[in-house]
Parts: sequence; C-alpha cells; structure tokens
Amino acid sequence: MRFIDKLRHRWHEADSLLCVGLDPEPSRIPRHLHGDPDAVFAFCRAIVDATASYVCAFKPQIAHFAAVGAESTLERLIAHIHAAHPSIPVILDSKRGDIGSTAQHYAREAFQRYAADAVTVNPYLGQDSIQPFLDHADKGVIVLCRTSNPGSGEFQDLLIDGLPLYRHVARRVAREWNDHGNCALVVGATWPEELAQVRSDVGDMPLLVPGIGAQGGDVAAVLRNGAAADRTGLILSSSRAILHASDGDDFAQAAADAARLQRDAINQAR
Amino acid sequence: MRFIDKLRHRWHEADSLLCVGLDPEPSRIPRHLHGDPDAVFAFCRAIVDATASYVCAFKPQIAHFAAVGAESTLERLIAHIHAAHPSIPVILDSKRGDIGSTAQHYAREAFQRYAADAVTVNPYLGQDSIQPFLDHADKGVIVLCRTSNPGSGEFQDLLIDGLPLYRHVARRVAREWNDHGNCALVVGATWPEELAQVRSDVGDMPLLVPGIGAQGGDVAAVLRNGAAADRTGLILSSSRAILHASDGDDFAQAAADAARLQRDAINQAR
Repeated sequence: MRFIDKLRHRWHEADSLLCVGLDPEPSRIPRHLHGDPDAVFAFCRAIVDATASYVCAFKPQIAHFAAVGAESTLERLIAHIHAAHPSIPVILDSKRGDIGSTAQHYAREAFQRYAADAVTVNPYLGQDSIQPFLDHADKGVIVLCRTSNPGSGEFQDLLIDGLPLYRHVARRVAREWNDHGNCALVVGATWPEELAQVRSDVGDMPLLVPGIGAQGGDVAAVLRNGAAADRTGLILSSSRAILHASDGDDFAQAAADAARLQRDAINQAR
Repeated sequence: MRFIDKLRHRWHEADSLLCVGLDPEPSRIPRHLHGDPDAVFAFCRAIVDATASYVCAFKPQIAHFAAVGAESTLERLIAHIHAAHPSIPVILDSKRGDIGSTAQHYAREAFQRYAADAVTVNPYLGQDSIQPFLDHADKGVIVLCRTSNPGSGEFQDLLIDGLPLYRHVARRVAREWNDHGNCALVVGATWPEELAQVRSDVGDMPLLVPGIGAQGGDVAAVLRNGAAADRTGLILSSSRAILHASDGDDFAQAAADAARLQRDAINQAR
C-alpha cells in the first residue's frame, strides 16, 4: 500500500495522530535489561508492542543506531513492526540529502535495506537531489521545512520576496515536487504560527510535527493551526516523553499509558 | 593532529590539492575481484594505496556503503588509511544534519565510530544543529554551501538582501560558526563564479570542491577563482574519473596514473 494511503487508513483505524519516535538512548535503557546483549532491540520492541494501539506511525531515528554500529538492530526492529503491526507505517528519520547517484544509494538505504514506508530528507540541495526518493511513488518523502530546534530560524526564516525561506520550501514541495502525491513536510510543534502558514501553503499535505513531548510544543495550538480541513493531516511525534516515561521494570506499561494519554489529549483538542 | 593542520601539512608534503572520493559502485568493481567476498574493501584499498602519493585527502562517501549494509567495510577502509597513510586526512562525506541529542549521535558516528578527521554537514537547520560537530575542535566540519548538482540553485541562489542564500551560509560559517577555526565549505567545481564569491567571503578557509572529474568542472577556472592567497586552500575532489579509470585488471595502476595526471594538471594551473 502507498505510504499516504496507509497513513490515512491508520489515522482513522486507530483514531490517532500520535507517532512514537524511536530514539533509544543506551544510557537510559532500564537497568533490568542491561544484562541482555540485545537490550536496545528488546527495549524498542517492548515500546512498539505496548504503544502500537495508540499510534498512527512509528519513527525510528537512524543516528541513535548508527552511532553504536547497531544497524542490524534497526533492520530487525522495522521488520518486527511490519510483521506484528502491518497497518502502521514506519518513517525512517534520517534527514538525508545528497546528489545524483549518491541520492540513489540513500533511497536504497531507506526503502530497500530498511524497508521504511517513508523517509525524512533535507531540501537544501534542491529537487534533483530528492528526485531519487520522489520516484518511489509508493513511499513517503518528508521534507524538512521549519524544524523544531531553537536555532531553526537562522536560515529558514530569511526573507525572500517577503516570504521566509521555509515557506518557499513548502510551496516548492507542494507545487513542483509532489507529482506522485507522496510528499509531506516537517514543521516543529514549537512553532505554531509557522505551522499555520505552512498549512495555508500546502492544502491537506501531511505534516510531520516533532516536539510535542519533551520539547514542550503546545498540542492545542498545533491542532488549531496545523490540522487539515478534515481534522487529520498531522503526524505528531513524541519520543523521550514516551520512551522514558519510566526507567524502571514497568517502562513498557508506563510508555503505553503515556501514549494513550497523549493520543487522548490530541483528540480532545481536535 | 587537528584536521586543519593535518590538511595544511599534507598540501605541502604531497604538493597536491587533489582529493580522491571513495564512492564505490558495486556494479563497476573490476570483474576479476567478483569472486572475492570482500571485493569492495579490496577494490577501495587498492585505489587508496595506488593513489596515496598524489592526494591531500581521501573522501569516502557513506551512502555507497550503507545502501548495502557494508558499514564494517567502511570502518576497515578508514582504519587502513590511518594505518598505512597516517599523514592523509580522511573526510567522511555524509552530509548529516539534525538537532540536539541526535546531532551528538551523528558526531559520534563520524568521529568515534569511523574515526574520520572531518565530516560534511548540511546547514539548513542552523548553527545549533552543527554545534555538536563544531565542539570537536580537532575535527573538520565541512558545511554545504553551493553544491555541484545542476539544481543546486533552487534554494541556494534565492536572494536575501541582495545576496544569495549560499553567501549568507558562507558568511555565517566564517563569522559565527568558526570559533575553533575548524570549519570549511563545500562549493562545486561546476560553479566557478560562485566559488570566487565564496572565496571573497571567507578569507583563507578551506573549500572542498567536488566535481572536477566526471562532473566536468574546469580546473583552471576553479584554481583562478577558488585558491587562497598562498595558492592552497582547496580540496579538489574527483571520484569516478579515478576509481573507474579502467575496469580491467590494471584498475589500480590506471587510478594512480589518473590521479597523478590530475594532480599535475591542478599544479600547472596554480
């Protein structure tokens, strides 16, 4: 199934806009797993299985695996999600961006090696650098637009013809890059006003919105400013607040509770 | 030794501004290596050993390894360069860019896991996304500025206060990001006029210039417009024209010949 259809189906099936980000910090893995040689996998699988009912997507962050040479853990984790929770799309958060044949290798990394349904990419190099991803019409291509970090405005806010760079990115993606209808954008929950502007630029395109958990984004403002006309259109991602809801033996149940509460808080604001 | 010192030393020691990009295409590995289960490593090691005398740096491109799950090959290749050619800096071409703790994981990937001397990064997310790399004062942080691809101008050329975005990036990096003197910029050889503008913006900062080989950049124009006052300041990268100078048994000798000729052509234009 195409990413975009899988996502739309899952929004309704689970009645959820919540995405759980899988960014495991080895130093915060619960102590009782420390003896397990496969602790990161065991931890992430438990989080996935405990929270699956409450999510529209999972978003593993590749650097957290690559920094410690754990690519095979990531491969197995994504395979587990597909096998155990086949209706939940997997977004590989890798923010790739390179040119020509190298971009093709990155597309192969995301879609063949890791079998992700969608991938995050960086727009700075222009459309031809993203085309090898866009050409996979069944896969989602989620382009960085206005990121959630405090310094995101350094370049993204520079004004060109009266509009900030991030809105030029949003408009180019919506008007020029989206021939296959497989594009989405990243806009941080920490910037609700910018979210409203992007939504006005891109119609009902899905927006991946990180930062609603530990980074402190305001859920009601995000919903008010970012939802599409049908009150979907958002993938609201939380990582640490769910992954590390408890550092004890009860971490999976605590993650499930945190995910359920977060999903409900989102739905209350819809 | 700090990357920048290692690079300056090597420019003089080898009398070379040439960098060989290690972007192995499995389909173009010479046929007589096909029976070797470690063919990509054998191929790259032979290229490294044959061309080492003629280069100021090696630049492995990570996607070419990651697409096929060959991270351990890349680890061993970089370890081989450090062991056999300790005065030659290794630039990991990975164009990373992410926020907060994730950026720290990417810095760990580049500098601890792969033991690279320098890494390429994407500026779109702003300085705070690059700070975890910049904090490694002994490592080089090479920021994308004006890339070599045909569509690089889509965002990089947008005018802000009369100056294109890529010059804002160049100036910010030179004036704000370079407290440790460990920054450099990427400017494609395919854009000699833009190279002159960047050089005027950043003083003697090193510029990594891909695109002099198969991509067709004009070496004389690159030297004229891009060299620093002392006729160094450039890392001129060629990949395919050297790696695949011959597809036969003589590939290593052909690569050595191509690298020597390229170095000499560069030096003639200095």
